[in-house]
Amino acid sequence: MPVLTNIRQLLTCRAEGGQEALHPIERAALVWEGDTIRWVGPEAELPARFREMPRLDAGGCLVAPGLVDCHTHLAFGGWRADEFRLRCRGVSYLEIARQGGGIRRTVAQTRAASEDALYHRCLGFLREMARLGITTVETKSGYGLSFEEELKLLRVYRRLQATQPVRLIPTLLAAHIVPPEYADRREAYLQLITDELIPHVARERLAECCDVFVEETAFTVEEARRILERGKAFGLRPKLHADQLHDGGGARLAAEVGAVSADHLEYASDEGIQAMARAGVVAVALPIATLYLRQRPMDARRFVEAGVPVAVATDFNPGSAPSYHLPLAMTLACVLCGLTPAEALKGATCYAARAIGRDRELGSLEPGKKADFILIDAEDVDHWLYHFRPNAVQATFIGGKRLEDHDATA
Amino acid sequence: MPVLTNIRQLLTCRAEGGQEALHPIERAALVWEGDTIRWVGPEAELPARFREMPRLDAGGCLVAPGLVDCHTHLAFGGWRADEFRLRCRGVSYLEIARQGGGIRRTVAQTRAASEDALYHRCLGFLREMARLGITTVETKSGYGLSFEEELKLLRVYRRLQATQPVRLIPTLLAAHIVPPEYADRREAYLQLITDELIPHVARERLAECCDVFVEETAFTVEEARRILERGKAFGLRPKLHADQLHDGGGARLAAEVGAVSADHLEYASDEGIQAMARAGVVAVALPIATLYLRQRPMDARRFVEAGVPVAVATDFNPGSAPSYHLPLAMTLACVLCGLTPAEALKGATCYAARAIGRDRELGSLEPGKKADFILIDAEDVDHWLYHFRPNAVQATFIGGKRLEDHDATA
Ligand SMILES: [Zn+2]
Ligand SMILES: [Zn+2]
Repeated sequence: MPVLTNIRQLLTCRAEGGQEALHPIERAALVWEGDTIRWVGPEAELPARFREMPRLDAGGCLVAPGLVDCHTHLAFGGWRADEFRLRCRGVSYLEIARQGGGIRRTVAQTRAASEDALYHRCLGFLREMARLGITTVETKSGYGLSFEEELKLLRVYRRLQATQPVRLIPTLLAAHIVPPEYADRREAYLQLITDELIPHVARERLAECCDVFVEETAFTVEEARRILERGKAFGLRPKLHADQLHDGGGARLAAEVGAVSADHLEYASDEGIQAMARAGVVAVALPIATLYLRQRPMDARRFVEAGVPVAVATDFNPGSAPSYHLPLAMTLACVLCGLTPAEALKGATCYAARAIGRDRELGSLEPGKKADFILIDAEDVDHWLYHFRPNAVQATFIGGKRLEDHDATA
Repeated sequence: MPVLTNIRQLLTCRAEGGQEALHPIERAALVWEGDTIRWVGPEAELPARFREMPRLDAGGCLVAPGLVDCHTHLAFGGWRADEFRLRCRGVSYLEIARQGGGIRRTVAQTRAASEDALYHRCLGFLREMARLGITTVETKSGYGLSFEEELKLLRVYRRLQATQPVRLIPTLLAAHIVPPEYADRREAYLQLITDELIPHVARERLAECCDVFVEETAFTVEEARRILERGKAFGLRPKLHADQLHDGGGARLAAEVGAVSADHLEYASDEGIQAMARAGVVAVALPIATLYLRQRPMDARRFVEAGVPVAVATDFNPGSAPSYHLPLAMTLACVLCGLTPAEALKGATCYAARAIGRDRELGSLEPGKKADFILIDAEDVDHWLYHFRPNAVQATFIGGKRLEDHDATA
């Protein structure tokens, strides 16, 4: 049972008290056994039974729960740096899609990539994410868009779960776009998702969540409802890409199907937000995409004031958000979306865990929860997210084991 | 005479050819002697006389000139993370200033800090900047605002020049704001700058450049002209903070006084830009400040199209730009200001060196220039700035010596 001491401040990020309540403990200690937290409190009150346990020195760091990136498209083939260069010069996304770019290009490159190649690439991403303090990552499929190719992506995630320490929460996003082969057979693609993919994925336990991209160029509210209800019947928690480019009724739908989260929401209606509040849906802000697309940011204050918990994630993908730097997303959530640093941290821990339905075990530092925590070289959370640095995280622990120790045994 | 080989691509960033011309060499080699480059070219054409020299393996990295951060306010006391929190919640900069925040607070904290404390703090900043690939930093005074306190900051920079490897280009920015003690004696403060500070600083060689903040709350165009002309008479190269919040005629003034650069320029007039083009003034984009202030970005394309070289810098300071992550500024220059990645790199090397008047020896990889270069883990410049990572720079060489070797001898 190791004891972490010499903690300047420990931010428990417990759920109670709303978006800004981090429940900090000054000069704290943290005790864990195996992969589970046993005790958290002021070091001066450390119970006698823990006093002889092996000590780890936090070096006066700030300690927070391991970060949870609750929205990524981790596995994809190729990149789209050339499209980035064009977009910087003002070429529109539509024009780029017309030239063969956009999501469809990534779909083609993902299909062309081997399972093994995708696996090794993700392994590299996850290693760098863990160094940034990310201990849990939601990982969507959605660049396969056929029975076999969607399963290929989910198998990559399963293999990663078995071989590296970062916790992965896989999500089936077969409803990302209608693939080119089904352009004239939309209903057939919907049936492939509802009648073949969802039952198979659920039976093989290849995903925990089911997600739909609700947008004019993707799926309608009614199509999304049908897919998400079917997923629910098979035990997949519903999630939504909603209201990113205009108010498409996605926020209300999320409330109606009891989604764990609705994500993007730059154009969510007041009515949709109220419905999300009543249904307890988490709103996920994705400000890296906002930045890269030079789009209107999600106004997080509207959600906080309505009583909707706001999570913050990267949306890592090769098009609109080619960065998995979650602390950057947190700083952007402050600058662009109006969260305070404390609110952004709650959004990347406690509420992010809720946005993937895993807040019973992840996202806060409390007895009984997983010993996933990070040591941060900053005096407080305000300073951490204000003074943007390459990486202020000094150490990452997952399940009570320090990252390098994982590496050593891997 | 070491030879660097196994370079995927070397971006020379020579001046000719305009903003986007990086003059890349595929599978290149780089030879230097002491601190100076002797030869650059394709590895297959390495002259016989260099073939027996000690080899360094670049590991297939991209190689670029060391980055030049041509606009920072490096030495300051305190931080302003609490003001950041307030600004996220929508409190205006004006309201924060009314509550005792803003530049004046940093001035008070800087005056309260010892020369030694400021020195050690900057040492930490520069170490992290060098790891990000920054090999030259322009460093402004401007939080002292009295004869003694401005000299204190410039002495900090002089001491840093003597004790650590990053090249520092100090700038006198006594004309940052009119300090509170001179609120009713504006002319006396101007005389302090022109009659005491400038002559003393020039005599002691404590600065190479002289800068003025031209803004309604700071100095007028005519005051700036008087200060910059006086500086020029003493050999200090003129620079300007210009047209950040509205068109204040700063761009035209920069052209008229023959400034090496005009910086910010979010609201520069077409006429000012034309004048800058004719006079050869570099425009410095500071997109981190744009982001943190949620301000209108500088439209870099207007400058490029008018023939004005655009540099990119961090503006590192504790208020509007609390980050020295120059690669982040470069990515933001693409996303917010409309530069391509290649243009942003030219702006953080060749043109940044020009913006501090040091482009004869710095900012490009050519025989006779300083052997300041970096190894980057990216396939090309587009990919480097598109896929934003904590730090893609694998190694930094200053004057032919690798960063860790500097550390070992320091
Ligand atoms: Zn997404
Ligand atoms: Zn500045």
